[in-house]
Amino acid sequence: MIKVAIFGYGNIGRAAEAAVRKASDMEFAGVFHHTEADQLIAAKPDVALLCTPTREVKDWAPVFLKKGISTVDSFDIHGDIYDLITDLKLDAELGESVAIISAGWDPGSDSIIRTLMTSLVPEGEGYTNFGPGRSMGHTVAAKAIPGVKDALSMTLPAGKGKHNRHVYIELEDGYDFEAVKAAILKDDYFAHDYTEVEQVPSVAALNTTNHGVHIERNGLSGTTPDQQIDFTMRINNPALTGQFMTSCARAAYRMQLRREWGSFTTIELRPIDLLPLEREQAIRQMV
Amino acid sequence: MIKVAIFGYGNIGRAAEAAVRKASDMEFAGVFHHTEADQLIAAKPDVALLCTPTREVKDWAPVFLKKGISTVDSFDIHGDIYDLITDLKLDAELGESVAIISAGWDPGSDSIIRTLMTSLVPEGEGYTNFGPGRSMGHTVAAKAIPGVKDALSMTLPAGKGKHNRHVYIELEDGYDFEAVKAAILKDDYFAHDYTEVEQVPSVAALNTTNHGVHIERNGLSGTTPDQQIDFTMRINNPALTGQFMTSCARAAYRMQLRREWGSFTTIELRPIDLLPLEREQAIRQMV
Repeated sequence: MIKVAIFGYGNIGRAAEAAVRKASDMEFAGVFHHTEADQLIAAKPDVALLCTPTREVKDWAPVFLKKGISTVDSFDIHGDIYDLITDLKLDAELGESVAIISAGWDPGSDSIIRTLMTSLVPEGEGYTNFGPGRSMGHTVAAKAIPGVKDALSMTLPAGKGKHNRHVYIELEDGYDFEAVKAAILKDDYFAHDYTEVEQVPSVAALNTTNHGVHIERNGLSGTTPDQQIDFTMRINNPALTGQFMTSCARAAYRMQLRREWGSFTTIELRPIDLLPLEREQAIRQMV
Repeated sequence: MIKVAIFGYGNIGRAAEAAVRKASDMEFAGVFHHTEADQLIAAKPDVALLCTPTREVKDWAPVFLKKGISTVDSFDIHGDIYDLITDLKLDAELGESVAIISAGWDPGSDSIIRTLMTSLVPEGEGYTNFGPGRSMGHTVAAKAIPGVKDALSMTLPAGKGKHNRHVYIELEDGYDFEAVKAAILKDDYFAHDYTEVEQVPSVAALNTTNHGVHIERNGLSGTTPDQQIDFTMRINNPALTGQFMTSCARAAYRMQLRREWGSFTTIELRPIDLLPLEREQAIRQMV
């Protein structure tokens, strides 16, 4: 049995708990809040799922990795992933543990899809189109802006991998909407897309955890054109994130046993390690 | 540069040649026919793509693996894959080489998709729906039946992962259609699906290399229902097969360098090894 702890307990933490409890090969080692890192270490799990805000991953992961506890996170700032890998590599090697980084759905499972599509159609054009749906990362980022009482950031597909964002906010008393809006638009999460910010009386009334993605690629296999590949999901966002982090915990555990210590992204895992099956079973059922 | 040879030169062999010639990190070591295994070995490629009929893979792969030449095949009899792995393991270990087995699109790239979908939605129902399109394996099997001058086996999706097959044949002079039809229906390739056999004046007039697949999965992530994932392709069949075998040749080469000798299916490869990119580039572009 793989002993899995959860660190941080928001939407993703709750979803991850459900996934760990349902996994036939896992033992649930408990939920630990930010003040309980020592208790988590004392519980000696094999793997800790880091369900903290994304920007805290780089601070918390080393705490556990150095103690020999492998970690899985859903760090979602695409441009900073390679730096995070570099940051965590030494901690994982020192602790003889494994960090699996950016193991949500995008980055995460979608990263594997993009890699596979590119291997099938090396030359051509590919796009990842999100939504419509609530972006967890962007919603957290909007909520962190001073003056924002509650927020919801919706991602709207605008074609060819472009997205518009629509941010609903409730204001704290005493803040000016235009100033808060300007602060949101300047945040790195929002600075790269066309974004509208709207003040509403109740964010709760608009809230949703549904999301979706359409990954597409078209081009040449060898010299043959018009090879068309499409991947789509309509999903509950935290549920899928918590589930995939849990499946990646299994891969982290197996890699740690094989002494493959270090920090890795999902495209560096063997897909077979995501499933609770013996090799022969997995090959007979999946291949 | 990875030196790649092609053994066997039918539809897949020709497509694989195009893919190898286009790969920026590969050197094309030539095409070798069935009588030229010794010449292939003398050319000292890193990897041989086995583009023979599927049933010859188990005879030819050991010839090259024992000599230290890694192999990639598109063996497509799902029920016999695990036995083939077991057969080739020792040859690969002895030769310090790597056999990547069943590296077409199904089994092959679709196997990775099924594995990933199951890791995202562990409980639920999933189906692989093929076609409409020409099955290369079934067409070769039909052509091998005595009395068949030319054949085309079409795969027709019948819902929920069921398929019908429609086999067009031209007869050799002196053969009885009903006897040939009975032989086709008894063949293991056709015995498990509803199959119709039709005699036509010209198979060439009906031929196609287009094919498609729709892989679907719906169910629970953790305890959350209605998680819906779909993967579809409309593709030229030999082109996609030849391209994916070529991408897997890259993985075989890297695994051989890392001394990960043995026989593996596509769900046991790291997706990153399929791409002609350095690690940092691959992570920045794909994750």
